[in-house]
Amino acid sequence: MIITLSESATSSDIEAICKALSAGSYSASEVRTQFGRYLVAIGSSEIDIRSIGSLPGIKDVHRVSDSYKLVSKKWKVSPSTVKLGNGIEIAGGGFTIIAGPCSIESEEQVRSIAAHLKETGVSIMRGGAFKPRTSPYTFRGLGLEGLKMFHAIARDSGMKVISEVVATADIEAMYDYVDIYQVGTRNTQNFNLLHELGRIDKPVMIKRGMSGTLDELLQSAEYVFSNGNEALLLCERGIRTFEKAYRNTLDLNSVPVLKEKSHLPVIVDPSHGIGIRRFVEPMSLAAVMAGADGVIYEVHPAPEDALSDADQTLNFEESSVLVNRARQCAALRDGF
Amino acid sequence: MIITLSESATSSDIEAICKALSAGSYSASEVRTQFGRYLVAIGSSEIDIRSIGSLPGIKDVHRVSDSYKLVSKKWKVSPSTVKLGNGIEIAGGGFTIIAGPCSIESEEQVRSIAAHLKETGVSIMRGGAFKPRTSPYTFRGLGLEGLKMFHAIARDSGMKVISEVVATADIEAMYDYVDIYQVGTRNTQNFNLLHELGRIDKPVMIKRGMSGTLDELLQSAEYVFSNGNEALLLCERGIRTFEKAYRNTLDLNSVPVLKEKSHLPVIVDPSHGIGIRRFVEPMSLAAVMAGADGVIYEVHPAPEDALSDADQTLNFEESSVLVNRARQCAALRDGF
Amino acid sequence: MIITLSESATSSDIEAICKALSAGSYSASEVRTQFGRYLVAIGSSEIDIRSIGSLPGIKDVHRVSDSYKLVSKKWKVSPSTVKLGNGIEIAGGGFTIIAGPCSIESEEQVRSIAAHLKETGVSIMRGGAFKPRTSPYTFRGLGLEGLKMFHAIARDSGMKVISEVVATADIEAMYDYVDIYQVGTRNTQNFNLLHELGRIDKPVMIKRGMSGTLDELLQSAEYVFSNGNEALLLCERGIRTFEKAYRNTLDLNSVPVLKEKSHLPVIVDPSHGIGIRRFVEPMSLAAVMAGADGVIYEVHPAPEDALSDADQTLNFEESSVLVNRARQCAALRDGF
Amino acid sequence: MIITLSESATSSDIEAICKALSAGSYSASEVRTQFGRYLVAIGSSEIDIRSIGSLPGIKDVHRVSDSYKLVSKKWKVSPSTVKLGNGIEIAGGGFTIIAGPCSIESEEQVRSIAAHLKETGVSIMRGGAFKPRTSPYTFRGLGLEGLKMFHAIARDSGMKVISEVVATADIEAMYDYVDIYQVGTRNTQNFNLLHELGRIDKPVMIKRGMSGTLDELLQSAEYVFSNGNEALLLCERGIRTFEKAYRNTLDLNSVPVLKEKSHLPVIVDPSHGIGIRRFVEPMSLAAVMAGADGVIYEVHPAPEDALSDADQTLNFEESSVLVNRARQCAALRDGF
Repeated sequence: MIITLSESATSSDIEAICKALSAGSYSASEVRTQFGRYLVAIGSSEIDIRSIGSLPGIKDVHRVSDSYKLVSKKWKVSPSTVKLGNGIEIAGGGFTIIAGPCSIESEEQVRSIAAHLKETGVSIMRGGAFKPRTSPYTFRGLGLEGLKMFHAIARDSGMKVISEVVATADIEAMYDYVDIYQVGTRNTQNFNLLHELGRIDKPVMIKRGMSGTLDELLQSAEYVFSNGNEALLLCERGIRTFEKAYRNTLDLNSVPVLKEKSHLPVIVDPSHGIGIRRFVEPMSLAAVMAGADGVIYEVHPAPEDALSDADQTLNFEESSVLVNRARQCAALRDGF
Repeated sequence: MIITLSESATSSDIEAICKALSAGSYSASEVRTQFGRYLVAIGSSEIDIRSIGSLPGIKDVHRVSDSYKLVSKKWKVSPSTVKLGNGIEIAGGGFTIIAGPCSIESEEQVRSIAAHLKETGVSIMRGGAFKPRTSPYTFRGLGLEGLKMFHAIARDSGMKVISEVVATADIEAMYDYVDIYQVGTRNTQNFNLLHELGRIDKPVMIKRGMSGTLDELLQSAEYVFSNGNEALLLCERGIRTFEKAYRNTLDLNSVPVLKEKSHLPVIVDPSHGIGIRRFVEPMSLAAVMAGADGVIYEVHPAPEDALSDADQTLNFEESSVLVNRARQCAALRDGF
Repeated sequence: MIITLSESATSSDIEAICKALSAGSYSASEVRTQFGRYLVAIGSSEIDIRSIGSLPGIKDVHRVSDSYKLVSKKWKVSPSTVKLGNGIEIAGGGFTIIAGPCSIESEEQVRSIAAHLKETGVSIMRGGAFKPRTSPYTFRGLGLEGLKMFHAIARDSGMKVISEVVATADIEAMYDYVDIYQVGTRNTQNFNLLHELGRIDKPVMIKRGMSGTLDELLQSAEYVFSNGNEALLLCERGIRTFEKAYRNTLDLNSVPVLKEKSHLPVIVDPSHGIGIRRFVEPMSLAAVMAGADGVIYEVHPAPEDALSDADQTLNFEESSVLVNRARQCAALRDGF
Repeated sequence: MIITLSESATSSDIEAICKALSAGSYSASEVRTQFGRYLVAIGSSEIDIRSIGSLPGIKDVHRVSDSYKLVSKKWKVSPSTVKLGNGIEIAGGGFTIIAGPCSIESEEQVRSIAAHLKETGVSIMRGGAFKPRTSPYTFRGLGLEGLKMFHAIARDSGMKVISEVVATADIEAMYDYVDIYQVGTRNTQNFNLLHELGRIDKPVMIKRGMSGTLDELLQSAEYVFSNGNEALLLCERGIRTFEKAYRNTLDLNSVPVLKEKSHLPVIVDPSHGIGIRRFVEPMSLAAVMAGADGVIYEVHPAPEDALSDADQTLNFEESSVLVNRARQCAALRDGF
């Protein structure tokens, strides 16, 4: 059950509500986000929702039977929009393109990509500064200094920045240099990291686990929301199956299903999803028609020379074609 | 290695070629289809392709390193077209819609669906007469009598028929009443059935196994081709994964990959693929943009009353919307 | 619901029972096996089991809520035994070893293996005459002539024979030369083949599908049983997962679960299961401790020269060690 | 390539070695653990190992072609032993039993379990103080205070303690109260956490990811080792598959394969692996015969009242039977 508190709710109001809930064998967690105050009440008994709803300090009350609550569409029916400032936003029902290099490599590389993206009208740039690597002996990214440089160039081009965070200790240091924190597939159930990101007032995009269910993804989002941060994006990035013809199995089924279960925008990552450069474009277009609110892909001036994931990274020409066609698909979809 | 024989090749020509191949430690299988004669030669040693190519009776010679040969795009670069007569065909690079009931239930049901499909311009009707059922105590379809009725109504409406064959013993009896034999996911490696379908001069659509790799699907197609039947369609119908939010995980990654590996048309089945009625349409549109040559879905005048698979079956209104939108997507794709 | 008919039940008795069931909205299938006569009644309404049980011609009545009925332990609590004649049997709760070559290759090969098995006290020999092969260009086995030779040598050594059947058309021809028909993983849902094997009075061992659930395996067994053949064995042979360090993922969890769900004996195939020769032995011993009623593995005088599956085939020395240790494990288990 | 440095190696020796490696296009990482000093050199070119081996400061040099290096058996052939003090150790090739509650709940609960374990001769007790939970609204454990109490009771009984660490921030605070840090399945690729555990001089047990490959598990272990901590244990705990008859699919294939790939001890967790209480015992015995160096399972005085994972937790009687039988299996295995 989600109880939205009114702005005027006092602490004694909240105490009284919790007492009433407790009498009905419900336990309540108070949630304060950048946009509102809520009580999430968990319990299995039957409780008369009207008797609660009439208490002072309450704006409204909703029953939510899902295992996730605040991210559920059963509570908030209208699609959420994540606002990034300067009129740039990611809106449920709209279509946003995010692109950039796998890893931030050099100023020259970033300038070149930023210029390309500006030309194609992409306004959010991705780039990894802290790279989670399977092997400890691999390049792990340029770190904070790389991110600062990346951010400065993005700002020069009027673009917003999304970058992966891999450790709670980095959250604060990254704060001034990212517009969206990305939680990668290996950290999708790093509850400690999610919890800390709940304290931040900047958006968070959570990738689905390598073999994570949609329910788990939504509960991971609930972690961030319930600790105070409503600005959330979900990201489908491919799951692990028996098929070895692609790096991962991009699961577009998740798109309409997540859109039905949650009010949060759904972004698709075809670069990691299929992991084969020449198929990133058709899978992006397919993602649009499946209902995605955006795509995120990798682009590099010379993919074959990229420091990481060259196999799934587009060059500028391919990137321009993708952007152009994806927009046509989104326009067609808008007409439906 | 695939050797295309010239029309004038004599049996002594072939004998001489096989002898030369054998000298190079290759063993050859002769393949005669409705459209040509070939020798498929398998061997691991190095053999001078020119020394073979100059022998009498040979039109051309290609090396094919894939585990499948005749269905490989390395041999035949141009997309294949499956012709069904009366100008109806399924062409690689085009877009075909196939629809109909899961099970053939009654004359009334079939007439109603045929009328709906005719109205929307769909020219190939699907319908199961022999149903493979997990439980022996479930309705297994109306059998041959049902198929005859179905075929007669389809013909009245100028439509072609696709229906599943589950036993070699049924192939002949079904012959006059189907235009395309469908091999279901549970029989995708029933090599005996595939072998027998190679003797038939009617097209065969093979569904991917429930957890079948693309390579296995292509080798299953090779079984039919190598036994004499070139008229083949591949069908993606969803794979089995850990995710239980959908019946199967429709794997659209397979579409561009199969199209690159093989010259055969690729059809997508979103009804079985995602198995949730309200998501059949977005997944169909996604399939178009992923590059599918067609979709096959289930439609019923009253899905909730259908004898089987009601959860994944559209009603006429939903079906009309799907057809209309899928065609707009295909038109947009044609422009790319 | 399963109704066991008394020996004296007349056809009018059965008619009366079916009528009563039908009145309760149940539909009944009559099943006659080599050991008994049953009615399997399917329906969802509440029906008073006592009102049925008191009708003439009935021995007893059981409710079985599983999707499979006659193979369920809810119906038959005591473990089943498959008798092969000459005192050789596979008993639930006992421990049987089955071994032999992947493919029957030559008289010399078979004689050598038969002598080895006799020496180690193995009394059931496996060997493939009809091989299901992913590629149509691979050796498909010696066929019926090979099987006849194999059977003759086995009989000379006092051993029983298990061999795979891949086509309904072969069932009759194989009849005199096998003691157990094996249904392979690719045919585990070839319902037509299963149905026909129900007409036979020889035992059938059904392998789990490559990505088949335990429920599906039990329903496949139900197909055979419900068409008249009670002599059944279930076989775990590894499933398909994301892990590529082994050929398949032998799933020993299935052993205690299948033993709890069904009264049928459970055999484990570690050769196909893990697919790595040097690990066939530890996985066999693990299978014993997990509760398997037997193991089936591959042995060859010179595994590296075997025509198929050399990687998972033991030599005689390894085979003797396996047999010896597996028996010690079984003896320890018996004491628990 | 792994270069073991001699105790007398000076920093100028190391510099010279790195220079020589660099000349051969290899880059080297220096590793200092509680037991030795190494250089791990990564490169793809051919380099003459003898020219390196003769440099001053080097004890020996090994080529290791695996993606993991220091945990590979190609480098260290003999099985590793993890020593916990007071003669308690986990030895590769031996057999160790670890047991305890899922969550630490109360002093009474812990005392009761400690007494039971002492009686059965189990000397390492598990218990969760920081619980990673899918839902943010679930009980997350008693935290550090709970761990302190747990540790005190374990010490009273002469037992060692293993407990899960979920955040780098907790490592130091837990230090005095654990003998083994456990990294759970959701953190198996939390490289930040692994890196920090490399700085600690207490053993770490890493669980396989929910859908992690063995190669990934070994590379996660490499993270800890390469940052300075050699005292490592690997833990198989079940993987995610399509089968829903069990909570996870305990993958015993991993046991002999991990034992062949790595010198680290392999522990099996059947409680989480199969997740069904009555099958924890047979899967434990199977793990022994598959070659495991130990098992870890959950036990509780009243499993049905446990705060978490009641379904996979044994009572004392079941636990005693498991311990007794597992030891008999281990004794039989020792004789092989």
